[in-house]
Amino acid sequence: MASPDLLFNLWNLFYLGAYQAAINNIDIPGLDVGAAAERDAIVFCSYIALGSYQLVISEIDSSAATSLQVVKLLALYLTGDKDWMRFSVAFWHTFCGTSADPFGAPTMTWPWEDGTNSLAVAKRRMRAHFEFMEKLGVNKWCFHDRDIAPDGKTLEETNSNLDEIVQLAKQLQGETNIKPLWGTAQLFMHPRYVHGAATSPEVKVYAYAAAQVKKALEVTHYLGGENYVFWGGREGYQTLLNTDMKRELDHLANFLQAVVDYKKKIGFNGTLLIEPKPQEPTKHQYDWDVATTFAFLQKYGLTGEFKINVDCHHELETARINGLLGNIDANTGDPQVGWDTDQFMTDIAEATLVMSSVVKNGGLAPGGFNFDAKLSVPFV
Amino acid sequence: MASPDLLFNLWNLFYLGAYQAAINNIDIPGLDVGAAAERDAIVFCSYIALGSYQLVISEIDSSAATSLQVVKLLALYLTGDKDWMRFSVAFWHTFCGTSADPFGAPTMTWPWEDGTNSLAVAKRRMRAHFEFMEKLGVNKWCFHDRDIAPDGKTLEETNSNLDEIVQLAKQLQGETNIKPLWGTAQLFMHPRYVHGAATSPEVKVYAYAAAQVKKALEVTHYLGGENYVFWGGREGYQTLLNTDMKRELDHLANFLQAVVDYKKKIGFNGTLLIEPKPQEPTKHQYDWDVATTFAFLQKYGLTGEFKINVDCHHELETARINGLLGNIDANTGDPQVGWDTDQFMTDIAEATLVMSSVVKNGGLAPGGFNFDAKLSVPFV
Amino acid sequence: MASPDLLFNLWNLFYLGAYQAAINNIDIPGLDVGAAAERDAIVFCSYIALGSYQLVISEIDSSAATSLQVVKLLALYLTGDKDWMRFSVAFWHTFCGTSADPFGAPTMTWPWEDGTNSLAVAKRRMRAHFEFMEKLGVNKWCFHDRDIAPDGKTLEETNSNLDEIVQLAKQLQGETNIKPLWGTAQLFMHPRYVHGAATSPEVKVYAYAAAQVKKALEVTHYLGGENYVFWGGREGYQTLLNTDMKRELDHLANFLQAVVDYKKKIGFNGTLLIEPKPQEPTKHQYDWDVATTFAFLQKYGLTGEFKINVDCHHELETARINGLLGNIDANTGDPQVGWDTDQFMTDIAEATLVMSSVVKNGGLAPGGFNFDAKLSVPFV
Amino acid sequence: MASPDLLFNLWNLFYLGAYQAAINNIDIPGLDVGAAAERDAIVFCSYIALGSYQLVISEIDSSAATSLQVVKLLALYLTGDKDWMRFSVAFWHTFCGTSADPFGAPTMTWPWEDGTNSLAVAKRRMRAHFEFMEKLGVNKWCFHDRDIAPDGKTLEETNSNLDEIVQLAKQLQGETNIKPLWGTAQLFMHPRYVHGAATSPEVKVYAYAAAQVKKALEVTHYLGGENYVFWGGREGYQTLLNTDMKRELDHLANFLQAVVDYKKKIGFNGTLLIEPKPQEPTKHQYDWDVATTFAFLQKYGLTGEFKINVDCHHELETARINGLLGNIDANTGDPQVGWDTDQFMTDIAEATLVMSSVVKNGGLAPGGFNFDAKLSVPFV
Repeated sequence: MASPDLLFNLWNLFYLGAYQAAINNIDIPGLDVGAAAERDAIVFCSYIALGSYQLVISEIDSSAATSLQVVKLLALYLTGDKDWMRFSVAFWHTFCGTSADPFGAPTMTWPWEDGTNSLAVAKRRMRAHFEFMEKLGVNKWCFHDRDIAPDGKTLEETNSNLDEIVQLAKQLQGETNIKPLWGTAQLFMHPRYVHGAATSPEVKVYAYAAAQVKKALEVTHYLGGENYVFWGGREGYQTLLNTDMKRELDHLANFLQAVVDYKKKIGFNGTLLIEPKPQEPTKHQYDWDVATTFAFLQKYGLTGEFKINVDCHHELETARINGLLGNIDANTGDPQVGWDTDQFMTDIAEATLVMSSVVKNGGLAPGGFNFDAKLSVPFV
Repeated sequence: MASPDLLFNLWNLFYLGAYQAAINNIDIPGLDVGAAAERDAIVFCSYIALGSYQLVISEIDSSAATSLQVVKLLALYLTGDKDWMRFSVAFWHTFCGTSADPFGAPTMTWPWEDGTNSLAVAKRRMRAHFEFMEKLGVNKWCFHDRDIAPDGKTLEETNSNLDEIVQLAKQLQGETNIKPLWGTAQLFMHPRYVHGAATSPEVKVYAYAAAQVKKALEVTHYLGGENYVFWGGREGYQTLLNTDMKRELDHLANFLQAVVDYKKKIGFNGTLLIEPKPQEPTKHQYDWDVATTFAFLQKYGLTGEFKINVDCHHELETARINGLLGNIDANTGDPQVGWDTDQFMTDIAEATLVMSSVVKNGGLAPGGFNFDAKLSVPFV
Repeated sequence: MASPDLLFNLWNLFYLGAYQAAINNIDIPGLDVGAAAERDAIVFCSYIALGSYQLVISEIDSSAATSLQVVKLLALYLTGDKDWMRFSVAFWHTFCGTSADPFGAPTMTWPWEDGTNSLAVAKRRMRAHFEFMEKLGVNKWCFHDRDIAPDGKTLEETNSNLDEIVQLAKQLQGETNIKPLWGTAQLFMHPRYVHGAATSPEVKVYAYAAAQVKKALEVTHYLGGENYVFWGGREGYQTLLNTDMKRELDHLANFLQAVVDYKKKIGFNGTLLIEPKPQEPTKHQYDWDVATTFAFLQKYGLTGEFKINVDCHHELETARINGLLGNIDANTGDPQVGWDTDQFMTDIAEATLVMSSVVKNGGLAPGGFNFDAKLSVPFV
Repeated sequence: MASPDLLFNLWNLFYLGAYQAAINNIDIPGLDVGAAAERDAIVFCSYIALGSYQLVISEIDSSAATSLQVVKLLALYLTGDKDWMRFSVAFWHTFCGTSADPFGAPTMTWPWEDGTNSLAVAKRRMRAHFEFMEKLGVNKWCFHDRDIAPDGKTLEETNSNLDEIVQLAKQLQGETNIKPLWGTAQLFMHPRYVHGAATSPEVKVYAYAAAQVKKALEVTHYLGGENYVFWGGREGYQTLLNTDMKRELDHLANFLQAVVDYKKKIGFNGTLLIEPKPQEPTKHQYDWDVATTFAFLQKYGLTGEFKINVDCHHELETARINGLLGNIDANTGDPQVGWDTDQFMTDIAEATLVMSSVVKNGGLAPGGFNFDAKLSVPFV
């Protein structure tokens, strides 16, 4: 820490708001290296207070002290030419969650629910969702195909259900100027996916998953979505004893390559995002973390086609330095419990590390922050 | 390890089955301490092979080497005057499990199910259960009240449903000579228990839980159950910020004292068992482990009235040395995953440690081994 | 959240510092329950700002809303009749730590060290310690016997070394008005303690440990220490296969009873504290956590004689509600690493929960906060 | 399971050792799919018993049932044209370990030690090592430069010390036909490496590490080592707040590329191996696991030049399917403790999974199994 005697006057000017006076009084003899860096930080913060962001950005280069890098990040953040906070509401947690858990029945009900999973309920849910977003002032949303519209008896019926709800969503989007941050296909709830979707040992399941992703991609495109996400909750194994890991990964790569081809065919320009998670529901998920996903993308020649949707600071920074940072699923777990609690992040230290990577990345667009958190996890 | 030269002949006789010859050739000069212990183990194992269990038990005292203590445990185990393996089928996992998980719909169906939770289904389920047990040759079962009979609109209707199924179980027990190892009340699924049963901040919930336990205790008694279990899945907290832990523990103690009183009033002589678990669904469960439960029982003067139902070796041994080992819920978790997988135990080293405590305890009766494992957890 | 319209004026008065005016304007019609509680909080905070702590304490009873309980805790904290922040410097981490780790040699050196563990170095270290404490303005310290004075070839020589350093400490204490918060015997570094001290299977080791604790207790008493601590780093097991857990716990209880007797004999009125830790260096430490220690103390009739020295919020609160909260070792670990990092606590949420228990406890005296943290653990 | 009636005779013949008769009796009508697979397994095991390994290998193709794949692996294993069990003694754990731990002083002494780290001791240690290996009948060893020879005051003196010990090792190798499985440079103990070796922010440290690796590579080559290992214990970070991860990884890649170049220059044909570990001593090690290392190797164009030295089954299989399985460090941890215990592996299920990958890989040569386990970790 600097000697308080030498910098007292400068701090005083700064806290009084006399920013120009602070800038005019930077010649202070006898400062050691640490004190000089502190002096510089005060001066650059004064420039920021006066709105001279570009001066700060250009003056602090990569060899400057860490304390000045932080000031530069603040200037970058404040320039305002970036939409840093691209927030999104997750339809599934917010409007499909019931606050059940593996040991308990649902504890939450909504007036628009009637206990069925009918199209009528789906429509009331969608209207509630848009009403909520408008009141919140958030203009992006995220969805799974199966969460916005009910499953049918056949693929045709299922797709028809989806089309009906998507029409409604399109209309509500038009009325509100709200758009999807991303869409995705839910490939984990239905029993057919118990042993995987793109990595299922059943060719019929692989084909069904492909048909489902094709439709979800079309729908996301139709609604003006800016990204499309893959979370492979069932793409992994419970034991290596009955798993040919190489073959399953080959299948997964083929699947993703087909998505890339189809995306181009239909003219969807959004980013394809992979969302890593180490485990749960599988014992080992193939997209274990960012580094594992990066190894996979490189091996199968998919690197330029995918980015990452991720949620904690080491993972974020790993994605960033490899040009893969695409989107943030803003939630957090509890370090004392071993399962995925999907809580809202309230830890300032963690959030600071997250935002540090975001600012270094120049923001997330066309990605954003999707609040992928359950409504009622009270763990502290 | 002993020198192979000196003990070669003795091992040879033993493996050839010449047990008496082995016993007659124990004078081997020049053995060091380790080799002498090995020689003694061979000789005592020969006595065991000849059926002289009592000789082995009386000759090996508590100062003997560890390798001989193991031989003594084997002799104790083989004496046959104990029913060491009191196995039980858990009704809930075996007949109510659907192999769903938090990310997936049910993947298992049974011919007797029709998608409802009606009394008719409950009866077919119960008949299937007894048919299965007879085929398996197991003569004990365990149950939750709510898993054998459906919830009704009122407590009266719920109890009436339970009575109807219990009548059927009683009849089937009579035809098969099968009895409950233990019964219990399910106090965690219904939304009313979201913040606890005996530790709920709502007095009505506390009262409802008491009524439910009263009935479950009566039913267990009526069916000839040998034990009654408490698993307090919701008796804990999600955060200390809104929890008065002392007050909740006082309530829990009052609740358990009332059960003790009622047990005596109705003449139920079975053992009351508490089943500890550290967390899940709560962040912190009050019956965290055996030591925590022992602290609680001592503080509230309940020590003589309860034993423990437990599942891993440190916990078992802690229960045993404090006179609390009552029953074993025979399942295991996966050390690489953070949630409760309820797998069948297949690790020989762990099973050996478990059985070591059981034999030192002189068996578990009137408790036993309840196979509290899900049908389809393939983790390895 | 309350309606901003109705409480706007009250908040405005409060933030302007017009506390009496705020108090005079509490009659606001039309408030719902939540808004009324918020209004009350503003008013009570105004009383606090005016110094009327006792009014706040007496007006808010245990049935008041949680938000008011927080205000009451603030009033209690501010009354000033408590020495809430009884800070202590840990001699070992601060002056014996070298910033080595299991994979690395020491990375820190001090001018008063010369690479030996001589009495001369020990004296220079002690003088540096007191100089540091004076500069810091902290008036309590904690020590292990072996860390302040070097081991000798015999117990006599070791005790003589200790006496020589204790004389110096006594003199420095006299010059500075600094006293020990607590002393302790280091019963884990020397090879004789590899399999335990009070729970060693070797009677000579048990006896040596007893002699060492006797001396450390005398020395703590002589220096005016207010507490004496037991951390049983080696009192546990590596495997149950070669451990008679009951016998070892019996020995530990005998050992602690002897300490209680000797404490009374020499007239030491300080508190005896047990410091739980689950594991490391053992696989299982007998003082696993507060609940385990409480079970042990009750079983062996030692409850009134010991309190707990502890470091995280669930443990603190468990100690508090059982009348066992004696002292806080203020450090923290890293939730992402599996070993004990002994870091300074920097998490505000955790610190808030800790202080909540401390205030409810009416402070910690004669215990305090010992900063048991390594100088150089940069994990974030 | 197959019906016992239909296969009873076949099993009987097999267990009696009448293998040819078993083979002659394979036409059993009425077998379902499972029973037919069991029948085939019996027959193929009979062929194995008769020594017809190649028949079994050629008959069982990749579409056969899992139970037959296991039989094929057994046949492959038994063909005997592979040196499957290339065992190695780790010099450091076996001859430098003292059974100290972070809380305890050394508990092990050897007659050839005198408390110094002199060249004379280093020579006695090396002679003991070769005597031990000869007695054990193991013909491979592994070493760190700094563990076989003491550090000097300068790099020149250090290298001269190393040369002197290497001369002795060369002579002892000549007398015993023992060779290094691999050598490595110890880049984590010396304080200069506290913030990394190849990833240190100090250019001098980077250069020193390079000089050390250059020498260690030459020495490994001179002694006829078949592999050279990199374990980057300090190549990671304690916090991202002061770490430029991308820059450090760039430096690491440059470092490894330089090693590849130098290896070729001196004609060393051994395999370069990277040994991943997630953390400890750092909070995050850059070679976190096999997938992370594979991502790194691909990004920096190093894939063909390195393989992996690894220790648990998921990691092994990940290495194998990516052509990276080079060597196994045969040790294991304790799932209940959070730090690296380096125990001998005793879990049969885990060992089976490990060997399954090894056999599928056609063995490990020129790699092998290095027993990287501490002498005295009694955890069970």
